Amino acid sequence: MKITTLEWKNNKIRLIDQTKLPHKLEYINIDKLGDLWEAIKLLKVRGAPALGAAAALGVYLGIKDAKANDFFKELDRVVKYLASSRPTARNLFWGIERIRTVALDNKNRDLVTLKKLLLEEANRVIESDRTNCRKMAGFGSSLIKDGDTILTICNAGILATIDYGTALGVLYRAKEEGKRIKVFACETRPLLQGSRLTAWELNQKGVDVTVVCDNVAASLMQQGKINKVIVGADRIAANGDAANKIGTYTLAVLSRYHNIPFYIAAPVSTFDSCAKSGKDIVIEERDPAEVNRLLFSKQIAPYGVKVFNPAFDVTPNNLISAIVTDKGIIRKPYVKNISKLMTNDKIQSSK
Amino acid sequence: MKITTLEWKNNKIRLIDQTKLPHKLEYINIDKLGDLWEAIKLLKVRGAPALGAAAALGVYLGIKDAKANDFFKELDRVVKYLASSRPTARNLFWGIERIRTVALDNKNRDLVTLKKLLLEEANRVIESDRTNCRKMAGFGSSLIKDGDTILTICNAGILATIDYGTALGVLYRAKEEGKRIKVFACETRPLLQGSRLTAWELNQKGVDVTVVCDNVAASLMQQGKINKVIVGADRIAANGDAANKIGTYTLAVLSRYHNIPFYIAAPVSTFDSCAKSGKDIVIEERDPAEVNRLLFSKQIAPYGVKVFNPAFDVTPNNLISAIVTDKGIIRKPYVKNISKLMTNDKIQSSK
Repeated sequence: MKITTLEWKNNKIRLIDQTKLPHKLEYINIDKLGDLWEAIKLLKVRGAPALGAAAALGVYLGIKDAKANDFFKELDRVVKYLASSRPTARNLFWGIERIRTVALDNKNRDLVTLKKLLLEEANRVIESDRTNCRKMAGFGSSLIKDGDTILTICNAGILATIDYGTALGVLYRAKEEGKRIKVFACETRPLLQGSRLTAWELNQKGVDVTVVCDNVAASLMQQGKINKVIVGADRIAANGDAANKIGTYTLAVLSRYHNIPFYIAAPVSTFDSCAKSGKDIVIEERDPAEVNRLLFSKQIAPYGVKVFNPAFDVTPNNLISAIVTDKGIIRKPYVKNISKLMTNDKIQSSK
Repeated sequence: MKITTLEWKNNKIRLIDQTKLPHKLEYINIDKLGDLWEAIKLLKVRGAPALGAAAALGVYLGIKDAKANDFFKELDRVVKYLASSRPTARNLFWGIERIRTVALDNKNRDLVTLKKLLLEEANRVIESDRTNCRKMAGFGSSLIKDGDTILTICNAGILATIDYGTALGVLYRAKEEGKRIKVFACETRPLLQGSRLTAWELNQKGVDVTVVCDNVAASLMQQGKINKVIVGADRIAANGDAANKIGTYTLAVLSRYHNIPFYIAAPVSTFDSCAKSGKDIVIEERDPAEVNRLLFSKQIAPYGVKVFNPAFDVTPNNLISAIVTDKGIIRKPYVKNISKLMTNDKIQSSK
């Protein structure tokens, strides 16, 4: 089955409503900016690269009917509004910025041409995600050996990108190359992207997957059952500190303790050269109801009890064995090598 | 509010149905051995010390109507049946054994006297749990400082014992002594004993508690928000390796990495001198439905996806800062000090 996380179709943003998975593969068509904002907020669409594409299309959606006289005022409003949806994923801001830059660079064009250019740019964001995931997979699969059992958290797969994935793309490529792999998917509380999304898509693609509660990871490592950990990222600072789904830092510490390689896979658009370290990354705090109710249904914690619900954590660079990007595999020293990456130097793929 | 986890009342075992918490504080009365077996299996009653008491009362419940001619055959059947309910908690077997030993030591008594002795012994198990929890709390509170923020997992409180708790008993005592403490309760997937039970009872007792998903613990430690970790245990081997709720080992590794003391609180009845190390401890594997459905309701993982659901893990002795028991605080070397404990030498409380 062909799964396309999101695309521009019939003058609308067509995307999979990921809150319905694994029960239903349901596509929704969005033609209002407010609906896209809500879809991002409620995680109907999520995953840093997919958010970059959604935001790029979102800017176009927001200004496609704007008049010439207030086009740039509208653009500003749309940009600010979309940027207020979720704070952590770098790609969301990067996607917005790509479209905004094209608009500013072409402000003297006529309105029809300008809008056409913006849609083309948004589609270019989508196409480059497709290509970059495959490049990342090509570099990253060299890290995976025949017979490996790999642990992952959250969803850094097809559903987090346009159609191939970052961390899971690496695993799809490894499988395509004939490597026999097994995957343990941490269920990823509170919103269970691991059991709902990762297990679903790995299953669809015929990858051997077992779901575990997040707190089983350490025990699996202790028993020697995990060869590698690979995860995605929402934002990577200039020194390599990486924000990703809450629980990622746990896996990084556990990997270090058990001498297991811990890899991150993320496109260059996830890197934020303005964040010097993880301290400069804003961590989204989400609704306690995600924790004290089960998927917004039954209350589980006592009414009135405090809940702390950060959506992400930051893994410091010293715990990261390597970062797989669409321009190659980056290793220590991260500050130097990420700086090279951001200035578009070609990073050599290395084992 | 006075909370009594379980007791012998009106010729029945009266216990809190913990699967109904935090919604309802509901007591059930059990007069059939099969119902007790099921209550243990389904975690209506859980927590190692409470299971010891339930098992002791259970043996009496199972043989209280037995005839003289097949009393000891019946006793054997009851003992084997109860022992088949759950494999990991040492106290369950210890509770059974206490009653069985009294029966064998008094096999020449008349049936009425014999049964009376067994009920007295079961009630003694209950009373000693009450006393031991308070002794443990007395020793353990010396480890807690005014202003401490303490992390715990699962429920090692009132609901895991008769009425005071092991790890949480230490915190109740610290609070009674005027120490200002805050607690973070890991929700404890899959069955959420942390958010359902620990948050509930700490709230009842006026202790400041915040619920977090299990994978938030590392992030809290990284931010310097946790001063101590204290948890219960289901079985402690002769070398100090401790089996406890799955996720405990994670916290132990994280504590070591962040230089945070990691304490276990458990009565002597949790120690198993027949288990030389954690390798000799049987880890219960439970129904995948606990993971891929949310509290037995809505399916969350895709149908047919594999789930691995161990109920416990083993924390090796080298990660344990100290073990708080009803006979004092034990530290390294564990093999020597536990051996002393098991031979009833008095262990000095030490800081």
